[in-house]
Amino acid sequence: MSSKSEDKSSSDIESNTDAKSSNVVWHTATITRKNREDINKHKSVTLWFTGLSGSGKSTLAHAVEDRLHHYMCSTFVLDGDNVRHGLCGDLSFSDEDRKENIRRVGNVAKLFLEAGVITLTAFISPFKSDRDLVRNMMPHGDFIEIYCKADLETCEQRDVKGLYKKAREGAIKEFTGISSPYEEPVKPEILVNTGNDSLESCVDVVILALLKRGIIRQESLLNEVD
Amino acid sequence: MSSKSEDKSSSDIESNTDAKSSNVVWHTATITRKNREDINKHKSVTLWFTGLSGSGKSTLAHAVEDRLHHYMCSTFVLDGDNVRHGLCGDLSFSDEDRKENIRRVGNVAKLFLEAGVITLTAFISPFKSDRDLVRNMMPHGDFIEIYCKADLETCEQRDVKGLYKKAREGAIKEFTGISSPYEEPVKPEILVNTGNDSLESCVDVVILALLKRGIIRQESLLNEVD
Repeated sequence: MSSKSEDKSSSDIESNTDAKSSNVVWHTATITRKNREDINKHKSVTLWFTGLSGSGKSTLAHAVEDRLHHYMCSTFVLDGDNVRHGLCGDLSFSDEDRKENIRRVGNVAKLFLEAGVITLTAFISPFKSDRDLVRNMMPHGDFIEIYCKADLETCEQRDVKGLYKKAREGAIKEFTGISSPYEEPVKPEILVNTGNDSLESCVDVVILALLKRGIIRQESLLNEVD
Repeated sequence: MSSKSEDKSSSDIESNTDAKSSNVVWHTATITRKNREDINKHKSVTLWFTGLSGSGKSTLAHAVEDRLHHYMCSTFVLDGDNVRHGLCGDLSFSDEDRKENIRRVGNVAKLFLEAGVITLTAFISPFKSDRDLVRNMMPHGDFIEIYCKADLETCEQRDVKGLYKKAREGAIKEFTGISSPYEEPVKPEILVNTGNDSLESCVDVVILALLKRGIIRQESLLNEVD
């Protein structure tokens, strides 16, 4: 249908031949991730925020998204708020279901990666094996683990949702940091000290890492949505 | 962090107060679907292609995506190829699992809708109840059912994947159109005669419907990716 489609004939697949009615061969066009990144003017990536409850994962993810949106980037945050009631609404908080939750989120992130979107996920994801499962789904370099480091003491003091209190009282079983382990990332691509540093400086750390990796371009910093 | 964030203070949520270390209140910024649609210069929507195996759903979805991409729109196709091996890799083709497959696809489409993307799904989705389940997940007007109408005879004659032959031989049980019903959409938003019309004219029908609904703008038709 266009010069572009013809250029990528190798990826075209002859899929339907309707000899009966029109003698037209229906070819399947394939818009690729690269095509989408080209119109977006940035690369896509999965930014995987991990850390204790209360470490500021979701807040930081949304703040980074806010900044990237102002640079005109295509972004999306996946977190408990938009996943737990919909796609994963059938899952409990058992070990097995938590694992399945992360598996589904990883697969959705992979679809968004293909769609050319910078995806930011905010889940405690306490187990290295689960995070590595997602890492291994993605092409090398497309999974960026961001460890939101904050002391348990700090997180428990914040206790924004009152969950630590409940966990201490035994009302929540297997609560990460209290009655269930958090396996610290050994070699995360990015470490942010969300326990001590300001939100703005944490955002800066992430943005700089994206520039360094060529995911966003310096020119984008000049954009400003009105 | 920016004038824009301050403008939408009503949607901000005070989420973390780190009194101990910095006295800084961390606010959660929220980039909305509307914000994303604004930078994309088009609205987001779910285009749900339904029809018999061989009716040309996937081919048409990809051709519509190709056209929209050249109009600089943000697009993504969800179909068996990218969903069945990943997100829904744990599901069989039993009635129950097919239903769960559609439920998950619907929820992913809803996330993409929120992300500002025009999402095109290509699944047989033979049962009205399953399609309606997805329709009812979405805000009114955001789910556009596209019935790819082609006679069973035509589809069976094409038999691109050799599945009809296998179904007739009994090697595939509960094959839509042969041993399992296809419930025709009663009042689809768009009907395309994929059995008789050319691919290009079917694409035109869909594009025109998107213009009519204000999802894409006339100005976009002048864009051309180089």
